[in-house]
Amino acid sequence: MKIDRTRLERTMDEMGRIGETPRGGLTRVALTDEDKRGRDQMVAWMRAVGLRVSVDQMGNIFGERPGTERVAPVMMGSHIDSVPTGGKYDGQLGVMCGLEVVRTLNDHDVRTRHPVVLGIFTNEEGARFQPAMIASGVMAGKIALEDAYNARDKDGIRLVDELERIGYLGPEPCVPRAFRAYLELHIEQGPFLEEEGRSVGVVEGIVAIAWSRLTIHGVQDHAGPTPMRIRHDALVAAAEVVSGVRRIAREIGGDVVTTVGNLTVHPNIVNAIPGRVTMSIDMRDPRDATLDRAMPLLDRVVAEACGREGVRYELEHYWRVPYTPFAADVVAAVERAARATGAPYRRILSGAGHDAQYMAAIGPAGMIFVPSRAGRSHCEEEFTGMDEIEHGANTLLGAALELAGLA
Amino acid sequence: MKIDRTRLERTMDEMGRIGETPRGGLTRVALTDEDKRGRDQMVAWMRAVGLRVSVDQMGNIFGERPGTERVAPVMMGSHIDSVPTGGKYDGQLGVMCGLEVVRTLNDHDVRTRHPVVLGIFTNEEGARFQPAMIASGVMAGKIALEDAYNARDKDGIRLVDELERIGYLGPEPCVPRAFRAYLELHIEQGPFLEEEGRSVGVVEGIVAIAWSRLTIHGVQDHAGPTPMRIRHDALVAAAEVVSGVRRIAREIGGDVVTTVGNLTVHPNIVNAIPGRVTMSIDMRDPRDATLDRAMPLLDRVVAEACGREGVRYELEHYWRVPYTPFAADVVAAVERAARATGAPYRRILSGAGHDAQYMAAIGPAGMIFVPSRAGRSHCEEEFTGMDEIEHGANTLLGAALELAGLA
Repeated sequence: MKIDRTRLERTMDEMGRIGETPRGGLTRVALTDEDKRGRDQMVAWMRAVGLRVSVDQMGNIFGERPGTERVAPVMMGSHIDSVPTGGKYDGQLGVMCGLEVVRTLNDHDVRTRHPVVLGIFTNEEGARFQPAMIASGVMAGKIALEDAYNARDKDGIRLVDELERIGYLGPEPCVPRAFRAYLELHIEQGPFLEEEGRSVGVVEGIVAIAWSRLTIHGVQDHAGPTPMRIRHDALVAAAEVVSGVRRIAREIGGDVVTTVGNLTVHPNIVNAIPGRVTMSIDMRDPRDATLDRAMPLLDRVVAEACGREGVRYELEHYWRVPYTPFAADVVAAVERAARATGAPYRRILSGAGHDAQYMAAIGPAGMIFVPSRAGRSHCEEEFTGMDEIEHGANTLLGAALELAGLA
Repeated sequence: MKIDRTRLERTMDEMGRIGETPRGGLTRVALTDEDKRGRDQMVAWMRAVGLRVSVDQMGNIFGERPGTERVAPVMMGSHIDSVPTGGKYDGQLGVMCGLEVVRTLNDHDVRTRHPVVLGIFTNEEGARFQPAMIASGVMAGKIALEDAYNARDKDGIRLVDELERIGYLGPEPCVPRAFRAYLELHIEQGPFLEEEGRSVGVVEGIVAIAWSRLTIHGVQDHAGPTPMRIRHDALVAAAEVVSGVRRIAREIGGDVVTTVGNLTVHPNIVNAIPGRVTMSIDMRDPRDATLDRAMPLLDRVVAEACGREGVRYELEHYWRVPYTPFAADVVAAVERAARATGAPYRRILSGAGHDAQYMAAIGPAGMIFVPSRAGRSHCEEEFTGMDEIEHGANTLLGAALELAGLA
């Protein structure tokens, strides 16, 4: 039994037009009108293939294909929100492949012992509402529903109000669900599979992640008549922090990655010395111990940069997730399914957070990676070839079938 | 003959409420609704004191008090637009003091040989439309009217459309005018007068200014699974440029000032490696030769920073104004008037650009400074005491009277 590559490609194309950018990327940020259109399309397709669709309090969408026994389902899931000017594969691909698996099971009239569920999680990216993966976080009991509801975007709009506005504030409680296995197919978003010529990554776990937020308070002043000797420039201090964050990665070496992705200057005009800068610091490593080592280095970088410029600051380490190993039996099932496709595969770690990370906290979870061209994602150039997608989708089909059990 | 300090203070207070911020500063950005309300108030006051008001093609407002002879006027002028979260003195103070001079002349039924004109220039700050001083630039023939009309704010709105929207697209041609002298009272925006305990600055000239714009094109990618070795981070390069721009000032020393005031990151989210950064570089010095030396240093800083990170860039040196000396006879008249107040004064250079800079290109111009507390401006904390303002306004009155000539 194999998935239908042509059908999968056609469905992906259709879905990719909702929020498509002029350069062929995707802007479908969580709980915007584009996200609503994407959700409506998904719900329509899920109903068309016979899934029983429900929506929970966080706007997560689930579609169930009944099993022959009253046991916990095998869930396939991912997300359909994107970053601004992102690509058409991150998240969406896993949902499309899950839908294709259901269609394939239907084509062959396959009955499974465990139900098979297709899940779509709200606001995985964290581009609009923070933290990322907020809805699977609520489901896993790691984030309070109320905190998630009160998350605000940069315009001060609350998540719960946007959920209601687009019609996806559902009635089902968002609480831990029982599942036989959670399976998420996703693009690698790194260069390793492509560099080694592998079609499929059998994901063993997700790296540890630490997010920090820094606000630097300088003295806003006129850029002309203010002599250098009396300046306290928030951006000069911030620039040293950016360089210092890069230096931390160089000093620690190995697999650690450090990024300043967000930096906002106030008042941000040519002829005013910046009075305030806010910025993010993202640090990741497979080993929790490495982040334990990196955090005090960051504290020192910030203290030194701000001390030199004579500026005040607030540094908040507001989000930390430990290394997440996936369930051995799920990883093994994914590996058997990958091997059965005949395509080259390898075991791999995920450098990005995924909803699977929170799902792993409440049940057996695993992931399947497919290659990202040049390792690129979160950009319009994001691309994965159909050959690799086909192997990945067949791996998902094989693993789901093994875990759900033929009736 | 002296100005009426109480009346001046009351008028300033009233004007300062139009666009006032909660913390007592001012947000009255050019050609916004607040700017329109400020203009309407000024026009009403100008008419109430008998000035004949006209508006030109760039929205500059002029109010004329006739002289006894048909000769070129003495013009007092400045601007009423502000930077966002700026102060209540930058620009506005010069216009208020000019109005107070007219009122004082009226109080004493003084007739002058030359007409006396009060002028208000559009978009001096350049906070919304660039370059700064765009309307006096057009008047001086240094900026084409069409280019000024097509200047766009960050939302893509054209200057000419905003002029029309707020009702200040006037009929008078915006071309060089003949004037006996142009006098602009302004806050110093630097620390020197306050540090030396002087009430008035007799401004000899305006420093040379160079503005550059830098766009860095990195490779946008996911902050998690992208190993450090394959990154091309636009913000890491930009941070090195910010540090390098600061270093240029340290290396050259003396009076040179260098500032990165504007820096914008794309896509600017926590978990994406910045794909693009745009930023401004502002460099100033009393001597043109110093800027001639600084520009290639900037070129090298940018080339090295971008070379190290492997990112493309465009660097554009788009605005340069040479050192502007003021007319010797106007400076001498200002100095005599300052001395006559009995308050301590000194000769000084302006580190900020002013409309007087362009006016000096088409006629005899001069400026009067009053102190800025802690040298601060372009911020809500901007402040000048009423004692100093009174001395400054009386200096403006004295100089205007000498140059306009008693009839």
